[in-house]
Amino acid sequence: MEKTTATQQTMDQVISPAQLLEHWQGHRRLTRRVIEAFPEKELFEHQIGGMRPFSEMVAELLAIAVPGLEEIVSKKTVEFREKSDFGHSKAKVLELWDESTEEINKLWNQIGLERFQEYIKLFGQYEGTVQSSIFYFIDNEIHHRGQAYVYLRSLNIEPPFFYER
Amino acid sequence: MEKTTATQQTMDQVISPAQLLEHWQGHRRLTRRVIEAFPEKELFEHQIGGMRPFSEMVAELLAIAVPGLEEIVSKKTVEFREKSDFGHSKAKVLELWDESTEEINKLWNQIGLERFQEYIKLFGQYEGTVQSSIFYFIDNEIHHRGQAYVYLRSLNIEPPFFYER
Repeated sequence: MEKTTATQQTMDQVISPAQLLEHWQGHRRLTRRVIEAFPEKELFEHQIGGMRPFSEMVAELLAIAVPGLEEIVSKKTVEFREKSDFGHSKAKVLELWDESTEEINKLWNQIGLERFQEYIKLFGQYEGTVQSSIFYFIDNEIHHRGQAYVYLRSLNIEPPFFYER
Repeated sequence: MEKTTATQQTMDQVISPAQLLEHWQGHRRLTRRVIEAFPEKELFEHQIGGMRPFSEMVAELLAIAVPGLEEIVSKKTVEFREKSDFGHSKAKVLELWDESTEEINKLWNQIGLERFQEYIKLFGQYEGTVQSSIFYFIDNEIHHRGQAYVYLRSLNIEPPFFYER
């Protein structure tokens, strides 16, 4: 008797949907610790070379993750819009971050394996497959969080270890 | 008549090995443009907050990519060693980068789909699957390149677009 189990399906994959979710959430846990490492004032004000403060980068990440997945799940185009109102509060940033964490888990379970190679035009303008879009979400987060590491170091604050998820 | 083609195999995957290679090489093309954007002196000397100059981060990326893949392919443990001798030359950095590009392509074709979920202990110390190790290589590159963006901006130099691969 042969059974095709979830484990068997994972073995035939470079990375399974469940592994990719955990990969992303691991990165998001690290980003959360980076947000926490900032003093509240510097989270909203510190920048280098004319770049945005980290709070504005986080607003971008929040505007991409859940709305992007909602569009993938519903197949209904939404407009890209950064609208996070943090009210200069680090606690509010973390609260919205944690809400997104839950939402991502719920939406993820509605994306079947057969969807990842499907072509989409996200936010009405970014063309690619579902997988390339999701990797873009993750890579963009790593990119901006790397910038936050420099901000923290320039403030003489030690960032969390990159390899701890 | 049914044929199981490479396309069919791709359709059943979150991301196929060929797509993951192209994803990585796309990131490596962007990193190459970031190296090029640095003036030679600043590539080797400019830093913020006590962090390493970007040339040293590139030496780390070179020490991970090809040696890491060689270990995955050969299953023989190697010691992690940063040994790039750039001789303070940007041309040399780019030359070694391009050599690695070719080596990565050659090694990649020796990694079968069934290997990606295999557990390994890379460089004798980093435990994980082949896929988690390769994603670590890519993510670590994005992380440090994000830092290089801040270095460039602090030098009043516009970095290449993040989304151009």
